[in-house]
Amino acid sequence: MAAESVWSVDPRTGKPREQVAVEATAGEVDRAVRAASAARAALADRTARAALLRAAADLLDEAGAHVIEAADAETALGPVRLTGELARTTAQLRSFADVVDEGSFLDVRIDLPDPTTTPPTPDLRRWKIPLGVVAVYAASNFPLAFSVPGGDTASALAAGCPVVIKAHPDHPATSELCASLLRRAAAKVGLPENVVVLVHGFEAGVELVRHPLVAAAGFTGSVRGGRALFDAAAARPVPIPFHGELGSLNPVVITGAAADERAAELGAGLAGSMTLGAGQFCTKPGFVLAPRGEAGDGIVASLTAAVSETEPGVMLDHRMRDAFVGGVRERAGLPGVTAPVTPGPGGDHTVSAGVLTVDAETLVDGKHELLLEECFGPVTVVARYASREEISEILSRLPGNLTATLHIAADDDPDAAGLLAELTPLAGRVLVNGWPTGVAVAGAQHHGGPYPATTSTSTSVGATAIERWLRPVTYQSTPQHLLPPELRDGNPLGLPRRES
Amino acid sequence: MAAESVWSVDPRTGKPREQVAVEATAGEVDRAVRAASAARAALADRTARAALLRAAADLLDEAGAHVIEAADAETALGPVRLTGELARTTAQLRSFADVVDEGSFLDVRIDLPDPTTTPPTPDLRRWKIPLGVVAVYAASNFPLAFSVPGGDTASALAAGCPVVIKAHPDHPATSELCASLLRRAAAKVGLPENVVVLVHGFEAGVELVRHPLVAAAGFTGSVRGGRALFDAAAARPVPIPFHGELGSLNPVVITGAAADERAAELGAGLAGSMTLGAGQFCTKPGFVLAPRGEAGDGIVASLTAAVSETEPGVMLDHRMRDAFVGGVRERAGLPGVTAPVTPGPGGDHTVSAGVLTVDAETLVDGKHELLLEECFGPVTVVARYASREEISEILSRLPGNLTATLHIAADDDPDAAGLLAELTPLAGRVLVNGWPTGVAVAGAQHHGGPYPATTSTSTSVGATAIERWLRPVTYQSTPQHLLPPELRDGNPLGLPRRES
Repeated sequence: MAAESVWSVDPRTGKPREQVAVEATAGEVDRAVRAASAARAALADRTARAALLRAAADLLDEAGAHVIEAADAETALGPVRLTGELARTTAQLRSFADVVDEGSFLDVRIDLPDPTTTPPTPDLRRWKIPLGVVAVYAASNFPLAFSVPGGDTASALAAGCPVVIKAHPDHPATSELCASLLRRAAAKVGLPENVVVLVHGFEAGVELVRHPLVAAAGFTGSVRGGRALFDAAAARPVPIPFHGELGSLNPVVITGAAADERAAELGAGLAGSMTLGAGQFCTKPGFVLAPRGEAGDGIVASLTAAVSETEPGVMLDHRMRDAFVGGVRERAGLPGVTAPVTPGPGGDHTVSAGVLTVDAETLVDGKHELLLEECFGPVTVVARYASREEISEILSRLPGNLTATLHIAADDDPDAAGLLAELTPLAGRVLVNGWPTGVAVAGAQHHGGPYPATTSTSTSVGATAIERWLRPVTYQSTPQHLLPPELRDGNPLGLPRRES
Repeated sequence: MAAESVWSVDPRTGKPREQVAVEATAGEVDRAVRAASAARAALADRTARAALLRAAADLLDEAGAHVIEAADAETALGPVRLTGELARTTAQLRSFADVVDEGSFLDVRIDLPDPTTTPPTPDLRRWKIPLGVVAVYAASNFPLAFSVPGGDTASALAAGCPVVIKAHPDHPATSELCASLLRRAAAKVGLPENVVVLVHGFEAGVELVRHPLVAAAGFTGSVRGGRALFDAAAARPVPIPFHGELGSLNPVVITGAAADERAAELGAGLAGSMTLGAGQFCTKPGFVLAPRGEAGDGIVASLTAAVSETEPGVMLDHRMRDAFVGGVRERAGLPGVTAPVTPGPGGDHTVSAGVLTVDAETLVDGKHELLLEECFGPVTVVARYASREEISEILSRLPGNLTATLHIAADDDPDAAGLLAELTPLAGRVLVNGWPTGVAVAGAQHHGGPYPATTSTSTSVGATAIERWLRPVTYQSTPQHLLPPELRDGNPLGLPRRES
């Protein structure tokens, strides 16, 4: 059987642009993983890792115009957004280089011998070592920041793990270009190019997570695809950690006092957040609890006005466009649901943003569960509540989320503390008086949340994302000269360490 | 159908001692989990958690004679060992109280706003919160330290998670006694008794891991049982972390130089470690690579002499005794295997320790895989190698382990560095010139390792065991008065924090 071709497609027209590659066979996946695995030893050098991450950032910046053009042609995200995404991506690579240099991710702990404990404590020196080859599943909606040169790749390389990346079919040419830049960066700093290997194809992705030499996986995508790979990872003879970011409703609660204070501003802010990038952000606010009554009406009016003025947008591919059109149609058809701005098809290749509203009390019947599921694209559901109890009732029915947002009055808001406590169990990031889109790459960031937001307790953005690719090992009573310098007496590398 | 009775059995005679309880039905498991879940809010108070752990330690110490008597009657581990285990257990509870007080487990990270980053950084404050109800599956071989009052329970309570413990059928009376002491400790410090709930029964254990309100599980036991529960945890609609310690061969490599230096001492030390507690430690050295030739013969001679003098021991139950007798018979019957001391049945209720030897080259045929699997009980396999290459060949075929041990010469040993590098990927703890039994409860301890040693990258012993029961959450742009004090400006609680 001939190998399946991998085509780059223009989402603005639905037309194929060029053949980029062919899908990897099982044998090719095996060779890819073995090649990456052979590069493990070279990545043990932390200085080289930091240099690799910085060189990759530099090469991506240098090739910036070319990268942005390639990504725009395949994703229609536009040069402005992609320029920002590239800057975010290279900043992320450099920030992981800083994480590597700083060294606290090694989590060094040293216990000197203590015969008085039960049982006695020998000389114990613990740090974290790389897990091995990491499989990275690139996202559709961030062709750079959550794809080939994105956070999973950056954090895995920072941890000392070679990566085999399964390209997303929505941007194969961008993936090839970025992979070649990463491999060139490796060569430039004296590392094997195979610290980064790219494969294409759905079946290749399944083979990858099952490969005995793959030690962990990072995934950004749909609940269905992510869960299938999670299940495959768990069913292996030797199960591996699977860090998947699958889907998120990103609920927003607006208190009565906040609505009274700034209804127009809230509606406009929500419109901006939910239509950004054609609603294709994993943190898009997809479900909003707003009060009934005049102030709440004001939010909906402002939201409606702003969304009505939004130009139709191009989604990442036509399958997503179809899913969006079908998804909003199904939701809009539920009893009690109205559409102040009808979401749906725009032109032949675009979609129009829209808003659905419903009374919150309608949702407690259990027949409107679909409104509590993510609908990828520029739509949000505003549920109008009549009482504080209704908010709690609805929140208790929500699945896990990446974010949960609370809008309160600037001064004393009587509902603030209680609602914050109710939102915290629902999400990995809780925002007050802001909007969830725009995920800062920072030490204190957490981009993850209860299932299905993520399949683990980890983050895929920020300094602690590196923790996913490491495991601790403790050396007991090991002579100084045999220890890695990180663990030796006198702390020759000047690392942050805990000693007792 | 009548509920199944749970009996305490005397392993020294195989006779039932008393009926302790009945197995929990699905409805009872549900009530147990709901009761524990209702205690979550109370455990949010860190001061109360620390007080609970210390009160539990005090009550266990006060009831020490009674606890030890109960455990000895069901496990035959003997008062000396159990006195040590109780001291270890109460020290462990107190050490987790110290972990709670010290607060670095909260992993607080604060990023102040920075408009210059890409994207801009808002005010982000991250810490870790408890996951929810933790299911604890108690071990057979440690009726205290890895059971009801053991490390999983202590670390989960320290994290702020109530526990529902599935008692091990080998020591139900001890489990009931310890659970009642833990519950009394809770009441004493003003917490709900249901922060600790005990259930009995195999089916109850399966129900437990499937319960929607159970948020994570800790397990110590066999590969078969642990893998079944791991699979159930992964197959849930909402999968949960399953931290299982399943089994470990604990390989030992003795270099030629070490053998030349101290053959007799090595044989005696190995005998002590492998026969300790009738070989029923998860860190029992079960596979030893020793050189051929005179020095290696000396090790085997010394080992043989010491093991021959070991009194027959009582195993934890008769099922384990049968498994041991069958397991050693099967191994001893493999071609090329000899038994300088034949392991097997002792009297009607005991087993005799033994040693199997084989040429390492025999193991490369793939037909002796059984010798590379853990055999629970007082037996070890000594594989005699003819070359350095043979060591590497065998090591590359080993599964994951809790420990790996290297014995080298006191002075320059040419094989030391290379072998240490080869052993590190195989285990969570690497020892030099020691024996792996005796796991210190310490900050730098790591008791875990590649599968099947554990089903995750976590440890079940030591300060970092608490990390298993927490997840990060980040507050964005949240007003000071709504933040938990742990995250507020000025660090009012004086916690270790990272701020940037």
